[in-house]
Amino acid sequence: MSLQSVLVANRGEIALRVVRACRELGIRAVAVYSDADAEAAHVRMADDAAHLGKSAASKSYLNADAVLEAARSAGVDAVHPGYGFLSERPAFAAAVEEAGLVFVGPPSSVISTMGDKAAARTVARRAEVPVVPGSDEVASVDDAVAAAEEVGYPVLVKASAGGGGRGIRPAATADELRDVVVEAQREAASAFGSDAVYVERALQGPKHVEVQVLADTHGNVVHCFERECSLQRRRQKILEEAPAPGLSPAIRESLCDAAVRLSREVGYVGAGTVEFLVEGDEFFFIEMNTRIQVEHPITEWVTGLDLVAEQLRIAGGAELSVGQDDIVCRGASIEFRVNAEDPDQDFLPSPGEVTGLELPGGPGVRVDTALMAGDVVPPFYDSLVAKLSVWAPTRAEALARGRRALAEYRVDGLPTTIGLHRRLLDERAVVDGTYDITTLETWLAQR
Amino acid sequence: MSLQSVLVANRGEIALRVVRACRELGIRAVAVYSDADAEAAHVRMADDAAHLGKSAASKSYLNADAVLEAARSAGVDAVHPGYGFLSERPAFAAAVEEAGLVFVGPPSSVISTMGDKAAARTVARRAEVPVVPGSDEVASVDDAVAAAEEVGYPVLVKASAGGGGRGIRPAATADELRDVVVEAQREAASAFGSDAVYVERALQGPKHVEVQVLADTHGNVVHCFERECSLQRRRQKILEEAPAPGLSPAIRESLCDAAVRLSREVGYVGAGTVEFLVEGDEFFFIEMNTRIQVEHPITEWVTGLDLVAEQLRIAGGAELSVGQDDIVCRGASIEFRVNAEDPDQDFLPSPGEVTGLELPGGPGVRVDTALMAGDVVPPFYDSLVAKLSVWAPTRAEALARGRRALAEYRVDGLPTTIGLHRRLLDERAVVDGTYDITTLETWLAQR
Repeated sequence: MSLQSVLVANRGEIALRVVRACRELGIRAVAVYSDADAEAAHVRMADDAAHLGKSAASKSYLNADAVLEAARSAGVDAVHPGYGFLSERPAFAAAVEEAGLVFVGPPSSVISTMGDKAAARTVARRAEVPVVPGSDEVASVDDAVAAAEEVGYPVLVKASAGGGGRGIRPAATADELRDVVVEAQREAASAFGSDAVYVERALQGPKHVEVQVLADTHGNVVHCFERECSLQRRRQKILEEAPAPGLSPAIRESLCDAAVRLSREVGYVGAGTVEFLVEGDEFFFIEMNTRIQVEHPITEWVTGLDLVAEQLRIAGGAELSVGQDDIVCRGASIEFRVNAEDPDQDFLPSPGEVTGLELPGGPGVRVDTALMAGDVVPPFYDSLVAKLSVWAPTRAEALARGRRALAEYRVDGLPTTIGLHRRLLDERAVVDGTYDITTLETWLAQR
Repeated sequence: MSLQSVLVANRGEIALRVVRACRELGIRAVAVYSDADAEAAHVRMADDAAHLGKSAASKSYLNADAVLEAARSAGVDAVHPGYGFLSERPAFAAAVEEAGLVFVGPPSSVISTMGDKAAARTVARRAEVPVVPGSDEVASVDDAVAAAEEVGYPVLVKASAGGGGRGIRPAATADELRDVVVEAQREAASAFGSDAVYVERALQGPKHVEVQVLADTHGNVVHCFERECSLQRRRQKILEEAPAPGLSPAIRESLCDAAVRLSREVGYVGAGTVEFLVEGDEFFFIEMNTRIQVEHPITEWVTGLDLVAEQLRIAGGAELSVGQDDIVCRGASIEFRVNAEDPDQDFLPSPGEVTGLELPGGPGVRVDTALMAGDVVPPFYDSLVAKLSVWAPTRAEALARGRRALAEYRVDGLPTTIGLHRRLLDERAVVDGTYDITTLETWLAQR
């Protein structure tokens, strides 16, 4: 059976992305919205829409009961969670399953396993995928210090239930570690509902490289090559590219194979991303994101696949539309995240009305945005308002195309990160592709 | 030597397309403009701009002296003519050459030869490329009737110096032909400056299929596969797609080979298009367009080539960036021409102000437009204001994506052909790909 109707349980550009995929597949798309989003593009472009509640995310997009009620009332077959919000909450996925609906993503048990960092590391070890040298969960501060001695300083203390770069603290000495563990446990308890933490070796300027995988319910698992996502500020990605520059063919193959092995080991279903740190000739699994990712368009550019359509087909029980040998990486693609933030004011969020808008166009340019002229960026949600992605036959041409498209992109009425991207593309480490996860913050600190 | 600066001798979306290619190649782009276009996007996005004259095309974009003077004043290396206007006038190309500048296109002698239909047919015969059965130029009405007897009725009378579908008249009998020849001669004399006409067999519902070629100054000639352009109204294309649906691999190969042979035979340089009519297993050369074409984006989608960048590289003396074996046709692409015309009022041109604009986006969608919100479509020029093109792995998916993107596309303030395209995509012959050059007019007449 293929899906007939889907509740798109998200907002902004990713909700619109899912609505678009539904339209193309002939699936009825039902949007959800908060008070602030009643007029939003993802609502206007859907076939139908259900009101969730007040503007605060906790009252709307994070309100699992309201989302489930919307799904039941709309009579949909399935729920697509997008990214963020409820997308990686195993309890939400389980509730969708229990309601007799299809969750567009892996089984709740897989979300649960991969969302627990210690459990995910265990899966990786079983799949013979290298992990960053580190401990199991530490029961006490003394335990943590003992673990750090084995791993070697500097170390990171990480919350077992953390993710998206949150709940991570560095420590260079045993004294520092003693303080940090206590703080980390307290923060983890309040942020993630569990005070479990573990200790890991802190790498020195690694690259963040991730592999896109697709798995169906028939046991087929493929990778769709990798993305380089090292340009990060406070562990938030800002620019991503595919393929990863400077990666040797041997490491690329090993990474991709490792991602497939890991996905098979955990019984993965749907679109997922296996994230690695790469340092020299070594790579280490760090986490798996069990959902579609912000940066999926660059993989779509280089492979020609429609990853959201694949998610929906897989959720409808179909076999993958392609085998591993059909997936070819062609050319180079770069994504620029456009956030409603002011880079000159320490990235202060900048909600407000878009008084004018000119989108870049022409060859090799894609814009994913739910923001139209006259729309208001509400202050309640993530500041990502648009994604510009470009493709060209070579990386050098993709950089030139990115510069050209960024020059054309005009958003009036509020500050965005467009100007920051223009400047980044003049930076030697970006032009060379030699940047690592420390590059952006170092550069920002020096400006 | 590669080009340092280029005069973009055109307006609208194609001028912007050339400006974009220049930017990406690091070439200084100098726009030209008429009074009506002083604020136009192609001017704003260029590095510099030169005023040509009043709004009427004859006083501006068709004023060869003014364009040449602009090129001299701006100190550019080269002139890119776009399509339409001066792009296929051999005298203009010759004047550019004589001014010591590079004409981005073939030598003026080649434009001259291929612009003369009788001479072009002679080239085709030399290259062993089949032409529609027909006569040489006819010296008199009696000559025409004699020629028609040989060719077989119904016939078409065509102006030797015509092109773009203009200067063509049908005749089903000798009596009709006697009248038509006289009219055709008179019209040809006034429209093209030569009363030379010839007689050709009128095919019954053929398909219009054309082959994109690229040739450099080093003797390399390649084809970039074909485009299907049969959906025409008054011989003006409205929707094009690549590859051509329903074309057998054998005919496709023969067509592409024929286009390369013809281009070699005439000593072609640059990007060019060889147009054919295809009827059953037969195909016939009709004309060669010695310039970039409106519908070039669909070839860019399926091949990954940047045809305008190739034009500029070739004009700078470079060898082609690809060999024939590197050019692969992947997936399917469709272009929808957005004209400022009212399909419900016999396609009456509809100039005016664009009061609101929402462009489609997301995966596999490209928009080429020089029209921004608040801009005014002037009444002086061609009514093409934008091109929407889509790509997907299969033709069925490209059709679905086209429907989705057309549903998103909103132009407020004036009628356009967007709604017509939405309806066309529900038509069986379009969905099946079985349409021919009579389909659109028949359908329009029945509505």
